[in-house]
Amino acid sequence: MRSDERDSRPAGRGRRAQGPAKWSGIRREARREAKEAVRLATRVWELAEPPFREGQSAKLIADYLAGRGFRVQFPIPSVPTAFRATWGRGRPAIGLLGEYDALPDCGLKRGTWGHACGHNLLGVGSAVGAVVASRMLLRHSLKGAVVYWGCPAEEALAGKVYMARDGAFRRLDACLAWHPSDRTAVNAAGGAALDSLTFEFYGRTAHGAHADRGRSALDAAVLTDVAANYLREHVPDNVRIHCVLPCGGTAPNVVPEYAKAWYYVRGKDREQVEEMTRRLTLCARGAATATETRLRITRLTGVYSRLTNGLLAEAVRDNLVAVGPPRASKADRRRVRQLGRRPEFDTHARRDIPAEAGKASSDEDNVSWLAPLGAFNMACVPKGVSGHHRDYTAQSNLPFAHRAMVRAAQVLAGVAWDLVAEPRLLRRVRRQFAQGTKRFRYDPLVPKGQRPLAQWR
Amino acid sequence: MRSDERDSRPAGRGRRAQGPAKWSGIRREARREAKEAVRLATRVWELAEPPFREGQSAKLIADYLAGRGFRVQFPIPSVPTAFRATWGRGRPAIGLLGEYDALPDCGLKRGTWGHACGHNLLGVGSAVGAVVASRMLLRHSLKGAVVYWGCPAEEALAGKVYMARDGAFRRLDACLAWHPSDRTAVNAAGGAALDSLTFEFYGRTAHGAHADRGRSALDAAVLTDVAANYLREHVPDNVRIHCVLPCGGTAPNVVPEYAKAWYYVRGKDREQVEEMTRRLTLCARGAATATETRLRITRLTGVYSRLTNGLLAEAVRDNLVAVGPPRASKADRRRVRQLGRRPEFDTHARRDIPAEAGKASSDEDNVSWLAPLGAFNMACVPKGVSGHHRDYTAQSNLPFAHRAMVRAAQVLAGVAWDLVAEPRLLRRVRRQFAQGTKRFRYDPLVPKGQRPLAQWR
Amino acid sequence: MRSDERDSRPAGRGRRAQGPAKWSGIRREARREAKEAVRLATRVWELAEPPFREGQSAKLIADYLAGRGFRVQFPIPSVPTAFRATWGRGRPAIGLLGEYDALPDCGLKRGTWGHACGHNLLGVGSAVGAVVASRMLLRHSLKGAVVYWGCPAEEALAGKVYMARDGAFRRLDACLAWHPSDRTAVNAAGGAALDSLTFEFYGRTAHGAHADRGRSALDAAVLTDVAANYLREHVPDNVRIHCVLPCGGTAPNVVPEYAKAWYYVRGKDREQVEEMTRRLTLCARGAATATETRLRITRLTGVYSRLTNGLLAEAVRDNLVAVGPPRASKADRRRVRQLGRRPEFDTHARRDIPAEAGKASSDEDNVSWLAPLGAFNMACVPKGVSGHHRDYTAQSNLPFAHRAMVRAAQVLAGVAWDLVAEPRLLRRVRRQFAQGTKRFRYDPLVPKGQRPLAQWR
Amino acid sequence: MRSDERDSRPAGRGRRAQGPAKWSGIRREARREAKEAVRLATRVWELAEPPFREGQSAKLIADYLAGRGFRVQFPIPSVPTAFRATWGRGRPAIGLLGEYDALPDCGLKRGTWGHACGHNLLGVGSAVGAVVASRMLLRHSLKGAVVYWGCPAEEALAGKVYMARDGAFRRLDACLAWHPSDRTAVNAAGGAALDSLTFEFYGRTAHGAHADRGRSALDAAVLTDVAANYLREHVPDNVRIHCVLPCGGTAPNVVPEYAKAWYYVRGKDREQVEEMTRRLTLCARGAATATETRLRITRLTGVYSRLTNGLLAEAVRDNLVAVGPPRASKADRRRVRQLGRRPEFDTHARRDIPAEAGKASSDEDNVSWLAPLGAFNMACVPKGVSGHHRDYTAQSNLPFAHRAMVRAAQVLAGVAWDLVAEPRLLRRVRRQFAQGTKRFRYDPLVPKGQRPLAQWR
Repeated sequence: MRSDERDSRPAGRGRRAQGPAKWSGIRREARREAKEAVRLATRVWELAEPPFREGQSAKLIADYLAGRGFRVQFPIPSVPTAFRATWGRGRPAIGLLGEYDALPDCGLKRGTWGHACGHNLLGVGSAVGAVVASRMLLRHSLKGAVVYWGCPAEEALAGKVYMARDGAFRRLDACLAWHPSDRTAVNAAGGAALDSLTFEFYGRTAHGAHADRGRSALDAAVLTDVAANYLREHVPDNVRIHCVLPCGGTAPNVVPEYAKAWYYVRGKDREQVEEMTRRLTLCARGAATATETRLRITRLTGVYSRLTNGLLAEAVRDNLVAVGPPRASKADRRRVRQLGRRPEFDTHARRDIPAEAGKASSDEDNVSWLAPLGAFNMACVPKGVSGHHRDYTAQSNLPFAHRAMVRAAQVLAGVAWDLVAEPRLLRRVRRQFAQGTKRFRYDPLVPKGQRPLAQWR
Repeated sequence: MRSDERDSRPAGRGRRAQGPAKWSGIRREARREAKEAVRLATRVWELAEPPFREGQSAKLIADYLAGRGFRVQFPIPSVPTAFRATWGRGRPAIGLLGEYDALPDCGLKRGTWGHACGHNLLGVGSAVGAVVASRMLLRHSLKGAVVYWGCPAEEALAGKVYMARDGAFRRLDACLAWHPSDRTAVNAAGGAALDSLTFEFYGRTAHGAHADRGRSALDAAVLTDVAANYLREHVPDNVRIHCVLPCGGTAPNVVPEYAKAWYYVRGKDREQVEEMTRRLTLCARGAATATETRLRITRLTGVYSRLTNGLLAEAVRDNLVAVGPPRASKADRRRVRQLGRRPEFDTHARRDIPAEAGKASSDEDNVSWLAPLGAFNMACVPKGVSGHHRDYTAQSNLPFAHRAMVRAAQVLAGVAWDLVAEPRLLRRVRRQFAQGTKRFRYDPLVPKGQRPLAQWR
Repeated sequence: MRSDERDSRPAGRGRRAQGPAKWSGIRREARREAKEAVRLATRVWELAEPPFREGQSAKLIADYLAGRGFRVQFPIPSVPTAFRATWGRGRPAIGLLGEYDALPDCGLKRGTWGHACGHNLLGVGSAVGAVVASRMLLRHSLKGAVVYWGCPAEEALAGKVYMARDGAFRRLDACLAWHPSDRTAVNAAGGAALDSLTFEFYGRTAHGAHADRGRSALDAAVLTDVAANYLREHVPDNVRIHCVLPCGGTAPNVVPEYAKAWYYVRGKDREQVEEMTRRLTLCARGAATATETRLRITRLTGVYSRLTNGLLAEAVRDNLVAVGPPRASKADRRRVRQLGRRPEFDTHARRDIPAEAGKASSDEDNVSWLAPLGAFNMACVPKGVSGHHRDYTAQSNLPFAHRAMVRAAQVLAGVAWDLVAEPRLLRRVRRQFAQGTKRFRYDPLVPKGQRPLAQWR
Repeated sequence: MRSDERDSRPAGRGRRAQGPAKWSGIRREARREAKEAVRLATRVWELAEPPFREGQSAKLIADYLAGRGFRVQFPIPSVPTAFRATWGRGRPAIGLLGEYDALPDCGLKRGTWGHACGHNLLGVGSAVGAVVASRMLLRHSLKGAVVYWGCPAEEALAGKVYMARDGAFRRLDACLAWHPSDRTAVNAAGGAALDSLTFEFYGRTAHGAHADRGRSALDAAVLTDVAANYLREHVPDNVRIHCVLPCGGTAPNVVPEYAKAWYYVRGKDREQVEEMTRRLTLCARGAATATETRLRITRLTGVYSRLTNGLLAEAVRDNLVAVGPPRASKADRRRVRQLGRRPEFDTHARRDIPAEAGKASSDEDNVSWLAPLGAFNMACVPKGVSGHHRDYTAQSNLPFAHRAMVRAAQVLAGVAWDLVAEPRLLRRVRRQFAQGTKRFRYDPLVPKGQRPLAQWR
């Protein structure tokens, strides 16, 4: 958390201390949804759909919300597997973010897709949170709206980027999110800012035996990468640049007339990323110059660093501590052992709010610039199980994971309740957000016409 | 042609001067096959099958030969689209080489395969030559055998390499081949020797944000290529090295654990190619060392330079001059113009025998080390139409091309006839071959178990 | 400072609180030496001798010490500009480190050498500290020895490395050091560990027009560097690798048979540096393999990270705070302004002990593994004046710098006094040192026979 | 020789058949100069001065010519070691080219300079040729001038380039040159065209530990070279590109703010060289772009391919055949054996005129575009002794070499005589020259103000 964005006054717990009543209501509503939630999470887990092709998963969740009284807009114009589901009307409007895309090579069978990031839990847990929050508002006749945003392709760091470009996430008073993890803690600092760039080179083909007549696009891609590696010495310590060469020519006998290099540039914020992107682009331009090829530059996606909202983070923390992660049973432990893992689980929510941003990135952070964002991690898997690996996939369809998902829903509902029930809290959160976005204008980072890349690899 | 392999005495034309009878017989037989030949060539042209997947084309030609009294072995064990068709028995045995694979991106519609090297004409023309030769032997009650070798994947420079490894092309007294072209001339010198090599690197994957834990196979492939380009300064002028990177990682976020570089190395003969392959391999080994990755080296195919047989070349020349290319009619010219080309055709067979090897390569040259090889080009397309381009595809299905194909068949039959009817000629050809292969042992260049790469790209 | 090496008990100030007597004695002795000290520092500043060629500077300081009753060994066998000067006998023996080499391109005239790191002050200041300490011991009839080590070539990170290899710095009970700076603070954490490596390649020369006969050593050096830059992605964030190519061929027409790449590898400790050196060396080996050249690897010098001694750091801090930096007079400020600088000076010694190691390196840290090392910085130049720049050279010969040098001498004498006068303090310091070096054996990092590189660039 | 420049009519030998008288005169004059010639050649050999610093050698030769009645202009304005010596007046004016620079690392002692290209013989031999020619003209009262051009720095391919830029070599009716060799033959085709280019990069320095603030000029130089090596695949077979990196940074700790790459580009003619220079320059520009450094491009020298004059070549051939190389005596052979060489000498002048240009280059070829150039090689050393090696140095100061030098002088005088005595021959030579230079305007290739690089390496 950045100290200049933190309000040093303690979040007045007293004022929203409807405690017992609040929690008994939330728990009751969550219990009512639990069975359906598990069914949905299991089904999304089985579908394990790729980014931008997670249509069935989206539909399942959208139908669930529609069945609970949400008005569904499916899909959102430019992103076919994104949707919005709204309950209630007017202000305050509390958003919840859901994701439901899977990862390649992470299915239990080799070569298949799998939910190695637990997005089956994420998407469904947020939906249950939205439903529970809506019930609480209804029951207590509180004015306001609950808005679930169905966000595809988080793994491509792209869904929310294109959604935000086309108008999503505005007009929320606050927005809530969570992520499955092996730990239970507030996530106030988010991750690294990022640009995903492709450099496509267009040369002139020729038979290999007359290569002097050709201009090799592959040479340009390789020279870009050599220069990019020389650039590494001359960037700040934290900057990360990664590359693959998805198109590197077809047959050796033919001077390649087309080649593509694909880069990720990670930095601490947009300013740093944009400076690095500028310099990396000079490497590509230099390579095009040297090889007499033509260069086409595309930013596939662009991710912001998190705009931390310290007050909202504290509210999230309080609710997270109140709920905590589930307790692992003997059966849970046995199942973990059967999967070849040590059955150690995080037992308590962390009380402090980590201030350092993660090295990885999430398009969730873009939303933090459009609405105050409160986010947390909930332990759904045993300690030490790494995301983006099939072990995680296996763990994310177990009863422990399902129970953790329902707990996450309670936390989300709890924070939503606080924001609606305590206008002063929301006002202070909004004020902090207004300060953080002063003179800020959201740059969507991808141009208006550009379509999200359905084939993310 | 290498001077030390040439017998300076003129090939005794007088002795095989059955001239008029020979040619009237050959022409008659060729005329009888012409219609079926055109049908077959057109069908193969339409099929336009890729290397190692040209099963239907092979079957069409094999069935045609079977229908003309040839005993067909289809397929040959290790190469599913290769076959042998034999007429007659005992010695002399005269081989004819047929090819029938197409080229990618050369079909008339973008993205489709096409016969931009005229292998539809080649495969069928050789088959007709074999049939005509067999008829001549039958008619004149000459002892001997005519053996058609159906050879796939010439465009991958691989079919005959794997066939030869598994025993093909031996036990022939001589072997004949032709190729469609825009010129009519003997091809005595063949092309460049070649190795097709893949360097596969195996590293250790890691999340991009923890790349220090990974060992990038892509880095190894790129560093191999940088070193290979530095090698270029230090090789003889004629050596050619070409590369593509068919596998260069999947997502930038993931340190690539696998990458592949694919090289062609061309030189004047096996010795030079093997020295260059040795040095190129050091580049790959060095890159594996530098990146702590594991290297797997595969020679996909290996091509010899041509062992020129000057006497057989002269016999081919004489027959080629006697037959010559077809004359282009007004209709031929009109068709060429309609395809946007200048209707200029080669009108005469070149009398001299070019001594310099071509820059491109053909697996046909491997056969020259297993049997004396006589080969020629026949003008089937207008001057200046380049192979491996869809313009060539269009030209190779026109009546002019078909007539040229039938003429090529006559030349093949004529040479076969000479070799059978003039034992002294064959003896001298064999003697020259024996000199050229003294102390030579055919190295198949690909290991016994290795399967040809069905997907040639 | 590493927490496990810190003794949490407060260093008992009471017990060594001979305060007023101690300081009045030290100040008096320091005042007596001041004039000669300024003369010496000015002379060394004027000489501005390069690393390993600072013979006159060394002699000046050695003569000064000899004149004050020190027994001088000049030079030390393997390092001609290093020396040792000892006062007293037996234990405890307190070492003081002196440096006196200059920097290239830092003289006031372009292209000349200059004391842009203030080693004129450093070397003389330590010598005055040694003299004052010896006087205090004499006056109070305390047993013990004061040992001044004259250390050349700190700027080449090499002097103490070769001295330590050949036996220096052992048999000290503790060792003290200081460095001119723009700040006044204890330096307990030292800098980065480092290896300085040369990769020399030996190829085969040839006329450029027949480069295929040559094997280019320059190619090998360049390919090493390309690989080294690819390595950057795969090292921990803090690791730093730098390179120059001091020998890159003579004439383009000649394939270079010799080339040299020179690297610095910096890491947090020896273990990390050695792992990086191993991997960097693989890059060089790989390049030698790829180019068929021979590789010769030399470690020019190797630097350790600091073994922090928390108790000694606290003793240093107490003395440093007691003395503090000089106060800048109006004349001082005027002189600074005349040199085009803002006359802002550090006014107080920092009380806390910074825990994080610096990014730069010093061979002083090697000594910390041979004896408990206490070190500090004294503000000798105005704030913001950067070392290794001629501005620093200009500032390091001003009256303010000279007064600061004399204050540094007082601090050194103060700590030396404490260590001798308070046996319990020294015992505790020694015990901490013994813990930190348990199972440690000093690796000199440069082989026995190797001569220090006189021409450091 | 280019066929379109050759006049097929035989050079009318009859008309200039003053044979016996001509040769007896020439031999007599040559004999008179022999002793002094040997003394001079020996002295120049001993001096062994580097390119652009060969002032004493130049002076020796100039003084010799002055002593024989030549009017000496020493030096020529922009090149301090170049001079002109003229005998006679008016037209025809026959030029003779002399060179006298030595080579590095070719002296008999390691690390010294030596005449490993025999320029001691060349410079003196041409001077003797000029003197003999002047005597012949004087004796026969023929009108005309003999102009000796003292040309420095041929080994840097630069002397004549700068001289030509500043007006030398014009107003000659023809120009003659020779070179010591192990063979005796006309040199009509010359060598390769060439550009010598430096790319200097200017970056921004920084301490290595803060390399992100720096922009490395060395990175730019290395990236240029990587790109240049990728360029190699895409140039015609005959093109040669060579590189050294004379300035590659000073200390690893400092981001290099300056670096230099030096290239030779060789091609068949100026057009090809300029296209290659254009593309190589794009590599450097691309590297500057990628590294954000500034690029300075300098053409140190530029060499033309030879404009062959077939008629003059024939006249040279006739004189060369008439004189021939010296006969090796027993003593000559013994001396060669003592130097560890096989004593085989070329015994006859080659009668045919080689048509293919050499792979190496000489600035002599530039002169061929300013005046008809006739040139030849004379065997001065045993067969197989390679230039640019100290073995050649040893051989070029032996009696055999001296006798060959005097023979070369006779050939030069013989051709000069023919050109003056046979106006028709000169007219035809001039006509051929006029045809070859139609629409040609001499581009000096180095800009007006640029000074020749005295330190050629």
